[in-house]
Amino acid sequence: MATSETPVAIIMGSRSDWPTMKLAADRLDQLGVGWKASVVSAHRTPHRLVQFATGAKGAGFKVVIAGAGGAAHLPGMVASMTELPVLGVPVQSKALKGLDSLLSIVQMPAGVPVATLAIGEAGAANAGLLAAQILGLADPALAGRLEDFRAAQTDSIAETVED
Amino acid sequence: MATSETPVAIIMGSRSDWPTMKLAADRLDQLGVGWKASVVSAHRTPHRLVQFATGAKGAGFKVVIAGAGGAAHLPGMVASMTELPVLGVPVQSKALKGLDSLLSIVQMPAGVPVATLAIGEAGAANAGLLAAQILGLADPALAGRLEDFRAAQTDSIAETVED
Amino acid sequence: MATSETPVAIIMGSRSDWPTMKLAADRLDQLGVGWKASVVSAHRTPHRLVQFATGAKGAGFKVVIAGAGGAAHLPGMVASMTELPVLGVPVQSKALKGLDSLLSIVQMPAGVPVATLAIGEAGAANAGLLAAQILGLADPALAGRLEDFRAAQTDSIAETVED
Amino acid sequence: MATSETPVAIIMGSRSDWPTMKLAADRLDQLGVGWKASVVSAHRTPHRLVQFATGAKGAGFKVVIAGAGGAAHLPGMVASMTELPVLGVPVQSKALKGLDSLLSIVQMPAGVPVATLAIGEAGAANAGLLAAQILGLADPALAGRLEDFRAAQTDSIAETVED
Amino acid sequence: MATSETPVAIIMGSRSDWPTMKLAADRLDQLGVGWKASVVSAHRTPHRLVQFATGAKGAGFKVVIAGAGGAAHLPGMVASMTELPVLGVPVQSKALKGLDSLLSIVQMPAGVPVATLAIGEAGAANAGLLAAQILGLADPALAGRLEDFRAAQTDSIAETVED
Amino acid sequence: MATSETPVAIIMGSRSDWPTMKLAADRLDQLGVGWKASVVSAHRTPHRLVQFATGAKGAGFKVVIAGAGGAAHLPGMVASMTELPVLGVPVQSKALKGLDSLLSIVQMPAGVPVATLAIGEAGAANAGLLAAQILGLADPALAGRLEDFRAAQTDSIAETVED
Amino acid sequence: MATSETPVAIIMGSRSDWPTMKLAADRLDQLGVGWKASVVSAHRTPHRLVQFATGAKGAGFKVVIAGAGGAAHLPGMVASMTELPVLGVPVQSKALKGLDSLLSIVQMPAGVPVATLAIGEAGAANAGLLAAQILGLADPALAGRLEDFRAAQTDSIAETVED
Amino acid sequence: MATSETPVAIIMGSRSDWPTMKLAADRLDQLGVGWKASVVSAHRTPHRLVQFATGAKGAGFKVVIAGAGGAAHLPGMVASMTELPVLGVPVQSKALKGLDSLLSIVQMPAGVPVATLAIGEAGAANAGLLAAQILGLADPALAGRLEDFRAAQTDSIAETVED
Repeated sequence: MATSETPVAIIMGSRSDWPTMKLAADRLDQLGVGWKASVVSAHRTPHRLVQFATGAKGAGFKVVIAGAGGAAHLPGMVASMTELPVLGVPVQSKALKGLDSLLSIVQMPAGVPVATLAIGEAGAANAGLLAAQILGLADPALAGRLEDFRAAQTDSIAETVED
Repeated sequence: MATSETPVAIIMGSRSDWPTMKLAADRLDQLGVGWKASVVSAHRTPHRLVQFATGAKGAGFKVVIAGAGGAAHLPGMVASMTELPVLGVPVQSKALKGLDSLLSIVQMPAGVPVATLAIGEAGAANAGLLAAQILGLADPALAGRLEDFRAAQTDSIAETVED
Repeated sequence: MATSETPVAIIMGSRSDWPTMKLAADRLDQLGVGWKASVVSAHRTPHRLVQFATGAKGAGFKVVIAGAGGAAHLPGMVASMTELPVLGVPVQSKALKGLDSLLSIVQMPAGVPVATLAIGEAGAANAGLLAAQILGLADPALAGRLEDFRAAQTDSIAETVED
Repeated sequence: MATSETPVAIIMGSRSDWPTMKLAADRLDQLGVGWKASVVSAHRTPHRLVQFATGAKGAGFKVVIAGAGGAAHLPGMVASMTELPVLGVPVQSKALKGLDSLLSIVQMPAGVPVATLAIGEAGAANAGLLAAQILGLADPALAGRLEDFRAAQTDSIAETVED
Repeated sequence: MATSETPVAIIMGSRSDWPTMKLAADRLDQLGVGWKASVVSAHRTPHRLVQFATGAKGAGFKVVIAGAGGAAHLPGMVASMTELPVLGVPVQSKALKGLDSLLSIVQMPAGVPVATLAIGEAGAANAGLLAAQILGLADPALAGRLEDFRAAQTDSIAETVED
Repeated sequence: MATSETPVAIIMGSRSDWPTMKLAADRLDQLGVGWKASVVSAHRTPHRLVQFATGAKGAGFKVVIAGAGGAAHLPGMVASMTELPVLGVPVQSKALKGLDSLLSIVQMPAGVPVATLAIGEAGAANAGLLAAQILGLADPALAGRLEDFRAAQTDSIAETVED
Repeated sequence: MATSETPVAIIMGSRSDWPTMKLAADRLDQLGVGWKASVVSAHRTPHRLVQFATGAKGAGFKVVIAGAGGAAHLPGMVASMTELPVLGVPVQSKALKGLDSLLSIVQMPAGVPVATLAIGEAGAANAGLLAAQILGLADPALAGRLEDFRAAQTDSIAETVED
Repeated sequence: MATSETPVAIIMGSRSDWPTMKLAADRLDQLGVGWKASVVSAHRTPHRLVQFATGAKGAGFKVVIAGAGGAAHLPGMVASMTELPVLGVPVQSKALKGLDSLLSIVQMPAGVPVATLAIGEAGAANAGLLAAQILGLADPALAGRLEDFRAAQTDSIAETVED
């Protein structure tokens, strides 16, 4: 069971999505936000999906990050069964390079939102940051760490193009 | 409960999909195949979806036709919870004209197929025909009606471009 | 100055985006969440953009909903200057039907997330809901109203395709 | 001549499609369904195509799986000459990554359906499974093996992201 | 039977393509080239297709213009059964605006070319002109009429933007 | 100066297109049709383009094959200055994989046709074949060689998928 | 002959492009910059194109604005024959909504740039503004009028969404 | 501070864009035009962006070349805060190959133009040339060097396809 120490659930449709989704976990680690990652395949483990989605709030999670590729139904289906904010990461697919993943995740009908991030690693990293931004609204210490993170990020962008 | 008289379930994500999906029903009517249509929204009625999908086989259905638009998760999610063949119809969406619906339905991962038809009305009509082709494999009388239907269709194509 | 009564800022690139963005306001009204809408054009009023983005947190806003079409830079640029969660709505554009708006908003680089919703009205409505979901994490009364909203939404989906 | 032992015909436009289409055969092998694979090029062997398509039913086939890339006419043309269900697999093409294959196969006009699967290997594997699902409607033993296959597939999805 | 008076066959997948394909006929009329138009549906009248394609040369045709929309297999399948030059016109489709028609026609594999024109009316008109250009290679009088047509076309382009 | 021995001009926008365009030359060699290849850049040598296009007919050419990538203007601009049939080959581009090349070549306005082939090597090979088909209309010996080529091509397609 | 009073040439592929291209002229009028508009079809009046492009500099023009749709070769071909800056406006096309126009204009090879603006009316208006920005570099009075124009534009963006 | 010796500013969203953007600098070097390159991230250093854009004119720059990938907001945001001509280079992105970059840059609303070049290296090289063309309008010596460059470029295009 997740406690307030692990407010973020990171789920993904396949273990092969982990190298991408790990970037969400990395950002949460950097910001001191607890997370728990697991594989939940919308299509191959639909009952695990239902169990996860209906139980996420009760388990103490505050935000769900869900990554999937191709006909990426995981984020939207979780969102249909929880009022927690669901952040969707379109994993880059082989043939269509994630355009299918993106459209499958973002084009949700009115009534059930999925907060969609960019295709691939940038999107996963940003899902971690967005989760922290959301949690930071009620956690001034986290908000402070985020401000520091963003300031450091700004400082890290050297102005020169070559050394 | 469906009986052998109603082997085809036609479901759709929204009542507004019915003008499209009705063409599947029309073809089934023409071929003397029973059907039952209902609205099952993957996102707004997820538990109805689970109930439908897990109960479809027991209810006597043989084939499921599922239509949806945008982030069209209905066909794939039903397919994840039944071994019945699921035929997916991408309903034409407003902004992206059904390209999102098509990719959301067809790009299923290995393990859970959805038999995808064309975008819009042609796809819906063909879902009806494909259901009949599948059922006709074990129903010689239906197969015969299908042959007649196809022959009549061929005969109906006049060769001249103008009267 | 916004107070806790108006936690959501709704901004848009042009007054012509209001018929779309109004759906976000409508959902917030239904859920009893205060909002303030204004026009902030990233390209035609860049200094208003800077002023808004850098002042949004201090003004008491908790969530920013930003809609724009075409080369839709507004959501991303606001996100670059605030740690508040920014929800981006791709407004449907004339020639490319919002595909340009969508890609301009969602494909943010690692470091600055924009929570992107669907193209057009569905996306705007969902931005309102997502804002409420985020605020509901620290507001049990709002969370309760959301649950009721979702339950009513589920109940409103009639199963029959025709009356 | 195919017997009830080989109910599935797997055809493809070019021998170079076999590494993709072999995944259909693999799934059929796993499920104990007989198949026969051959190369039938719609464009380079059109008369072989006519012969195959018009003779498929008489030869004892129940389902046809047809894979092709680019201007992929094979599945649709076979479907135009048989009442057997035709499952189309868009093989990934070089320049357009299978988007051309997909649209050429799926966008059939009303009257002649092709049950289209995903682009590439996932689509081929799913064509094998879908053929088994269709045949399983009249073959309880096969239906049972399919249920076992699906259950094993579900069990194989480990929940943890790392060992 | 066509004679040297009717060197161009104009075929199309559906009578509804005639308003588009008529522009090919109009250009041939303007240039004094005989044509014969008929409906040949690759999918609904496959045997008419085979009969037409294998008999086109013997019937005295020199060039075939074939128009079709969606999964547009007609031009490529005719090309697979004749050595006559086949000119393909992608008819504008409803959902995907002819992009599916275009890719289905143009992306032919090595070995069987289809000379593809633009989507819709411009493509049909140009198919007529291209047929005349091809026939004009061995018909100096026609080549002369073409030169006059092109010169008149050039002269008709007024330089001013307003009267 | 080209004679009847070299009826086909093969031009291309850049020397780097030759590995693709060489396939057109190969097919013409196989069929005993003379050709002459040269680099004509629409953008970097516009006057060479004008000179080539206006002189092509007088130089004895019967058919022009033009290949180009990206903003591929060469085929259309040659076609604007000659009544000879112009066959356009979209060379695969780096970023957009030839989709830009294809649209730039095929979407010609009414009045000036370009016979467009597939993207890349298949298209180049087919341009060679199409040129031979066009020339074969007035050259029975060539038409005979083409028939043999096509028959051999058909025979070369083995039916088995593995040795 | 153009004088310093008419530094901007506005050309377009067809008279039907004028309703779009007129917006460039309107902006130039607002900024007191002289212009001359004419129809120059790359494909139907290629020699007029050569004459215009090679003579543009000598005629006193400083900037060329060229609009075209579909296989839009006009801007690139003008750019190939003049060192003047060429601004390209992709006119919205019927089937592909200007995506073909955009790619045909913007994807120029290294060596011959076209400064490409947005599809349709926004692009045309901006071509007028960009021409003024370029001319303003050496014309302080014009630069001042531009500053005023931009300031007025900023002031015109009301902040409220409704009256 | 830039002087008349460094009229061109080259900015880019990330140091990783330099290998692409360097081609702009190379062309300027070849033409004897001074430039200064720096990294300005619209999203990670928004205040550096404001500072750069509002100060560019005062610092003596005449033309700004801005390259960015993905949700490429840099060129448009700079253009919103300066009357200098801004040339935008869409850097090729990983998943969508620069289509996102292109649409994000080119689809600017009426009022704030960005002169957009091709995706990737060709676009960067052409941005350098276009900057020189613009500066050459008021600098006859530079105009002369440009003419020589273009003539040399034309001469460098060998006509033969092989050595």
